Amino acid sequence: MQNDDATRAPRHRVLIIGGGFGGLSAARALARAPVDVTLVDRRNHHLFQPLLYQVATAGLSAPSIAAPLRFILREQANAFVYMDEALEIDRTRRVVRFAHGEREYDTLIVATGAGHAYFGHDEWEKYAPGLKTLEDAFHIRRRILLAFENAERETDPVKRQAWLNFVIVGGGATGVELSGTLAEIARHTLPREFRNSEPRNANILLVEAGPRVLPAFDQDLSEKARKQLAKLGVQVRTGQAVTSIDAHGVELGEERLVARTVLWAAGVAASPLGALLGVPLDRAGRVQVNPDLTIPDDPHVFVIGDLASVSTDGKPVPGVAPAAKQMGAYAGEVIADRVQGKLPRAPFRYKDDGSLATIGRMAAVAQFGKVKLSGIVAWWVWLIAHVYFLIGFRNRLVVLMDWASSYWTYQRHARIVQGAISRDDPPR
Amino acid sequence: MQNDDATRAPRHRVLIIGGGFGGLSAARALARAPVDVTLVDRRNHHLFQPLLYQVATAGLSAPSIAAPLRFILREQANAFVYMDEALEIDRTRRVVRFAHGEREYDTLIVATGAGHAYFGHDEWEKYAPGLKTLEDAFHIRRRILLAFENAERETDPVKRQAWLNFVIVGGGATGVELSGTLAEIARHTLPREFRNSEPRNANILLVEAGPRVLPAFDQDLSEKARKQLAKLGVQVRTGQAVTSIDAHGVELGEERLVARTVLWAAGVAASPLGALLGVPLDRAGRVQVNPDLTIPDDPHVFVIGDLASVSTDGKPVPGVAPAAKQMGAYAGEVIADRVQGKLPRAPFRYKDDGSLATIGRMAAVAQFGKVKLSGIVAWWVWLIAHVYFLIGFRNRLVVLMDWASSYWTYQRHARIVQGAISRDDPPR
Repeated sequence: MQNDDATRAPRHRVLIIGGGFGGLSAARALARAPVDVTLVDRRNHHLFQPLLYQVATAGLSAPSIAAPLRFILREQANAFVYMDEALEIDRTRRVVRFAHGEREYDTLIVATGAGHAYFGHDEWEKYAPGLKTLEDAFHIRRRILLAFENAERETDPVKRQAWLNFVIVGGGATGVELSGTLAEIARHTLPREFRNSEPRNANILLVEAGPRVLPAFDQDLSEKARKQLAKLGVQVRTGQAVTSIDAHGVELGEERLVARTVLWAAGVAASPLGALLGVPLDRAGRVQVNPDLTIPDDPHVFVIGDLASVSTDGKPVPGVAPAAKQMGAYAGEVIADRVQGKLPRAPFRYKDDGSLATIGRMAAVAQFGKVKLSGIVAWWVWLIAHVYFLIGFRNRLVVLMDWASSYWTYQRHARIVQGAISRDDPPR
Repeated sequence: MQNDDATRAPRHRVLIIGGGFGGLSAARALARAPVDVTLVDRRNHHLFQPLLYQVATAGLSAPSIAAPLRFILREQANAFVYMDEALEIDRTRRVVRFAHGEREYDTLIVATGAGHAYFGHDEWEKYAPGLKTLEDAFHIRRRILLAFENAERETDPVKRQAWLNFVIVGGGATGVELSGTLAEIARHTLPREFRNSEPRNANILLVEAGPRVLPAFDQDLSEKARKQLAKLGVQVRTGQAVTSIDAHGVELGEERLVARTVLWAAGVAASPLGALLGVPLDRAGRVQVNPDLTIPDDPHVFVIGDLASVSTDGKPVPGVAPAAKQMGAYAGEVIADRVQGKLPRAPFRYKDDGSLATIGRMAAVAQFGKVKLSGIVAWWVWLIAHVYFLIGFRNRLVVLMDWASSYWTYQRHARIVQGAISRDDPPR
């Protein structure tokens, strides 16, 4: 299963598992190094996760925020891309076993990120889907659109309202984005199209267990976000934890909220690949790495991105895209230095470039050190930053076009439910 | 389950099953009639099937060729849209039973079209997917893209070539479009991105049991289509029927062709809903309708589109989009006339506006009565006609943009494989 170009002398082999922000940035950092880079992912595409909520809410189509990994790396002659699933890591033999064969490495970079966590309640997943992959986004899109379809078909007013009640669990960036956009859909996109039901009667409820939404931001911006959500029509409950979820609603301790659609934006769990390394994990399942992002006692293995637990300047590095990119670039540079016999680098240091979260139509918050923005100005900064970081000219153009048209017409062009409705739709 | 607007006097209720070209056109023809129109489809969208092969070959994303039915009919105040699956038709009680409840009708229009047919070999479907729905298109896209991924990962040259061999069964419009586009992908889109395998080594084989490709066109245009296919790199075999299909290839009588990817574009079968009407069907399962598109002995039920078997001017009406649209409009007008007490119309008459089939990059054939076109001129006519008939300004713009960019760059932006690869990918 090795690269079968027999004409070259053997070179240092860097194997990267995961083509997210971390893995891709590591591969790119090695472009000019005298190494062979092999990037393996279970999927064929890199996903621009910060805009995934737009696919889930029918504003963007999937190809606008995803690009094939081998397309992205096509000009990098030392990069090989394979689609495969890692099953086992043998650090003694320096071999990774994949579903379709083994691959040897000289240096391994594990960058498989994180998935959802249901705090020990995996049975909630069926009723409250989370948002990490394109398939998750399609599933959530289907659930949202079918809820309005079911309300239109339902003749019992109580049952109909249950289809128009939405609960979003988790007040971080994803929960805020989903609930704000959902409110816009219910109030502006759908109303004229329904005859029996009234989408404007939808209740969008955002539940956060902690004391405020967007806890990664300063207190005053959380308060502003809450106000902007209220203006969009989202009810926010903070300090209340969900204790139960089923097909008909959620429970917050003693209180029961009836809602046929519940979306999960509360917890993340590190990729199970971390546990295959046989090194200490933190409570969230992340690998506690050395200051140079290698794992304890094995300088040949790096862990980066959301799967890595590391602190710089005394603060834990957050699980966000810029941190994963910085870790990937750092790991790539350390490996390039080593192969070229240079002195070891200083430890990894996270540079906080600021935080942005969008809330809905022309509403967002932004924090860059001491500079804080909210409302329409923050929204423009958010838009420009996100379009800038998208891969590919076509995508930037189409996303801008979709945004402009969605702004003027309130329409969302990707309102396509995949698959036919069935007798078991919705799940009972 | 009736429309619960209790303030209006009861009106003639027209129930339409199926939101394709036929059903939608019937609904629109009833816009100004004093009737209630209820359109029910298992899916939430109308699909522009003539461009479905572009989704299957990663040139367009799904929302470019699909639009929610209730969005299309939003301005038509007498139209109600529901997402549901028809299970049973009771013509005595004039009731249709759906998965989520019953609906009464005064007049019923059945417009559920056709699916694939495997000529009694349903076991072939697993190995040779057909192309009728968006899910079919995603499945075929996945199969095509994974074939090249598997070739890149494969080290055995014989097994690798098997992944680069593609057989398309059926030389009608869909088979010609799929094979021409696949040849372009292999020769122009992918080459620079692979390191171990050579996409240019792909063999694209189009197999047609009849004597020529595009049998709906005149002989000389079939010959021109064959030459254009050959120029694009597609091998065409006519007069050879597939006798067996499995995971590793197809058999044409004594001859075995090794190919890990087989696509089905050979046969269609009428929707099973026709059989629920309890009237005579033709060999393809279509309902033999009266000259006014009603079924024998029941003037309250119309069957239109691909599910209807009817001849006009002594020739069978073909199963194409313009025919379905014309039947839908006719049925709508007959119903409007009846409700308003007008005299019966003349029988349905199919007006042949000509035929168009695209073959690949700047290659197509067209036939309008005695006017025949081929090559680049036919391709432009094809392009303009298809963009014109697409629903929505945004879609027209984006499709044109995608075509222009695909022409200049040879890129196809929708090369996204949904879902992760697994141990059982490909099916064994």
